[in-house]
Amino acid sequence: MTEELELEREEADDREDAYTLDRKAIAAILNAVEMDDRDRLIELMEPLHAADIADLLEQIDSDDRLGLIHLYGKEFDGDILSELDETLREEVIGILHPEVLADAVRELDTDDVVDLVEDLDQPQQDAILGALEAGDAAAVRQSLTYPEYSAGRLMQREVVMAPEHWSVGDAIDFMRNSDNLPEQFYHVILVDPKLRPVANVTLGKIMSSRRDVLLRSITEETFHTIPVTQYEGDVAYAFNQYHLISAPVVDDNDRLVGVITIDDAMAVLDEENEEDILRLAGVDGESRLSDRVIDTTKRRFPWLAVNLLTAVLASLVIAQFEEAITQVVALAVLMPIVASMGGNAGTQSLTVAVRALATRDLTTANIWRVIRREVAVGLINGIAFAVIMGIVGLLWFGSAQLGGVIAAAMVVNLVVAGLAGIVIPVVLDKAGIDPALASGAFVTTVTDVVGFFAFLGLAVVVLL
Amino acid sequence: MTEELELEREEADDREDAYTLDRKAIAAILNAVEMDDRDRLIELMEPLHAADIADLLEQIDSDDRLGLIHLYGKEFDGDILSELDETLREEVIGILHPEVLADAVRELDTDDVVDLVEDLDQPQQDAILGALEAGDAAAVRQSLTYPEYSAGRLMQREVVMAPEHWSVGDAIDFMRNSDNLPEQFYHVILVDPKLRPVANVTLGKIMSSRRDVLLRSITEETFHTIPVTQYEGDVAYAFNQYHLISAPVVDDNDRLVGVITIDDAMAVLDEENEEDILRLAGVDGESRLSDRVIDTTKRRFPWLAVNLLTAVLASLVIAQFEEAITQVVALAVLMPIVASMGGNAGTQSLTVAVRALATRDLTTANIWRVIRREVAVGLINGIAFAVIMGIVGLLWFGSAQLGGVIAAAMVVNLVVAGLAGIVIPVVLDKAGIDPALASGAFVTTVTDVVGFFAFLGLAVVVLL
Repeated sequence: MTEELELEREEADDREDAYTLDRKAIAAILNAVEMDDRDRLIELMEPLHAADIADLLEQIDSDDRLGLIHLYGKEFDGDILSELDETLREEVIGILHPEVLADAVRELDTDDVVDLVEDLDQPQQDAILGALEAGDAAAVRQSLTYPEYSAGRLMQREVVMAPEHWSVGDAIDFMRNSDNLPEQFYHVILVDPKLRPVANVTLGKIMSSRRDVLLRSITEETFHTIPVTQYEGDVAYAFNQYHLISAPVVDDNDRLVGVITIDDAMAVLDEENEEDILRLAGVDGESRLSDRVIDTTKRRFPWLAVNLLTAVLASLVIAQFEEAITQVVALAVLMPIVASMGGNAGTQSLTVAVRALATRDLTTANIWRVIRREVAVGLINGIAFAVIMGIVGLLWFGSAQLGGVIAAAMVVNLVVAGLAGIVIPVVLDKAGIDPALASGAFVTTVTDVVGFFAFLGLAVVVLL
Repeated sequence: MTEELELEREEADDREDAYTLDRKAIAAILNAVEMDDRDRLIELMEPLHAADIADLLEQIDSDDRLGLIHLYGKEFDGDILSELDETLREEVIGILHPEVLADAVRELDTDDVVDLVEDLDQPQQDAILGALEAGDAAAVRQSLTYPEYSAGRLMQREVVMAPEHWSVGDAIDFMRNSDNLPEQFYHVILVDPKLRPVANVTLGKIMSSRRDVLLRSITEETFHTIPVTQYEGDVAYAFNQYHLISAPVVDDNDRLVGVITIDDAMAVLDEENEEDILRLAGVDGESRLSDRVIDTTKRRFPWLAVNLLTAVLASLVIAQFEEAITQVVALAVLMPIVASMGGNAGTQSLTVAVRALATRDLTTANIWRVIRREVAVGLINGIAFAVIMGIVGLLWFGSAQLGGVIAAAMVVNLVVAGLAGIVIPVVLDKAGIDPALASGAFVTTVTDVVGFFAFLGLAVVVLL
């Protein structure tokens, strides 16, 4: 344990230094804004990456944001908009001078523009599309016809492809003479005469092969095409599972329509994980620190309301045993322990289940073994804590019977927690409901109700 | 809500089809193992990616695993070992025939071998290093001298570099004549005479430039070097934050020692997120579905034990009010509601805080504003639920005073929950303890104790 803590400490220290915006730097920037010193501001912002500037804008308050953006003026870069949290984009776009906005979006790749405009309201969307060149605007509009969260929205439309019969020399000559190659690309995609992708050749392989080598003889072993309507979470999964760097996107006729690169897939994977983490804790997956108080309050309210229902349900169970509690008040003292232990054990199981579903590790092939395992774990830990609580009950209240009751209730509730923790997420998933979102409320209801009922019910039978 | 559920449903359906191992395929494979039909097994396994084979091995039970691996024999690929969960590697390496194992590891890149051997015990580690060619074994041993979870362990040692004064033509000629280029690379790294990296040139740019263009004139704008001892989580953060595809790794003297590519960074980011999710739920970050029952039980026990302490502490608070509960048994019925609502609100805040710390969105620049925000959210939701519970208390038990008591306790506990939920993770983080691991227990203790104390204490003052 000490060693582990030691490591944690080192990690944390390291993390503190690495990539956290420096407080002094932020103070200096805000000071320049305060002083209305544009040159100083530009000088201070110059070394910052667009992603860091976006983080900075998210971390300061809205007055400072307004001041900074006005003073920064036309230095404001399109990439900053791309990096900004969605919740702040509307505000910032509203602040930007229309000309600055137009310049900013014109610098962006079309896939970044799609990502930028898809959540904006109509007037802002029109303003941005109007600023683009006609061809780019058309490309963005085309991408917006694909469903939200689909591969079509994620892909870039600029692709580098070659007929199957080309040699390395053909490909290099073609690329040298092409004046609008994508900014980032990693493969040349081989296509058949109907424009269907058949293989990838890495640039590294092309680079290291002689000019007369045929492309089809140096193709990559792993080749994976993405349907244009595929859910972006599945795209991210495929990239992570098969270690893809870029993958061609195809339409219903298997024809090449775009390409997705790993950096976009990585961002999606990160967002999906973030959403799962927040949803498991009863927080809206889209919540951000920069949300306004009122929005945050509204987003958290529904989950608390569901929890209130759960808690009232548990109270109704307790109310059935008022008589018993009046006679043996120790029951009121001990009953939250059983419910709380069940709730925690259930949360452990359900979190493992939710993650295993997300990573495709929990399938019909192993569901029964996993259920048996969770029940067994619940049983063993239930017995362990039954012994501990039995002794505590005996020592605290001097009653072996009370100790026996809490011990038995503990075993029951931990077994039920293990079972509910795995079955509920699986059933929700089958029913098409995100298990990360809804499992918690159901599992807690089960462990609360069973916990109070088993403990108080057994007490009535044994003690009264 | 309906629309959202609809979307969830579609997502889930899609997810079910995409990339989940087909039950029939698994059944057919297990059947071939059963029948001892090697040709059939190889035929069925042939289309599967190594990552899918690893998933398959994780999902079947250990007897089937043994049978499959024996029958599959020398077809067993090194990549399968790389893709396998760490918890199963030892078992599988123990099953593999030494010759098969030797062949398997010889196919791997040295960074994959490092990842493979770093968690093995000494005899297995020696067996694998012994199977490698002397040069590779030395490279692996060298990597193992870097701290665990450092960039040095993650990087590949094969790099493609060029002096600053080279032209595109020089680079292409060099690569054509080099016979041991890495399998995957995306940049040529420009280095100064002391081998310090100064810039990256993408292969795409080299490809699309004429032979006489100087490399230094087509370098990439974003350039980022990684210190060899940097924590791998920070490396992953940098890749995600700055959209890096590959980055040179440097030693203390800023000299180039290796390169990290985005696919490795993506895997680390995914692992880090996974660990946070599990730890937040009180599950050991290394837990896997394929763990044995006894290991899982042991891994979950400590968290439950901590929770037991928390729950007993809360019970001690209740015990102070036994007298009041005996007189007004409704207190026993209602008290879990206040504690439960506080626990949930606290979990919401702490999860947001833990994530914001992990993504560097919560810093000294905005900590005070975030604390004020969480307290305000707790206050507003506290008032909302105070009104609701006040009415419930009044209607249920016919006592306006009881309604008032639970309402007041609700406000207090939700404000405390918001405060504790943000302050505790931040303090733990400053103290070098992983907030994902420990925040939950502390916050729940606070909300339980405050919840019971505020409700029962107010009740004594107001009702008795």
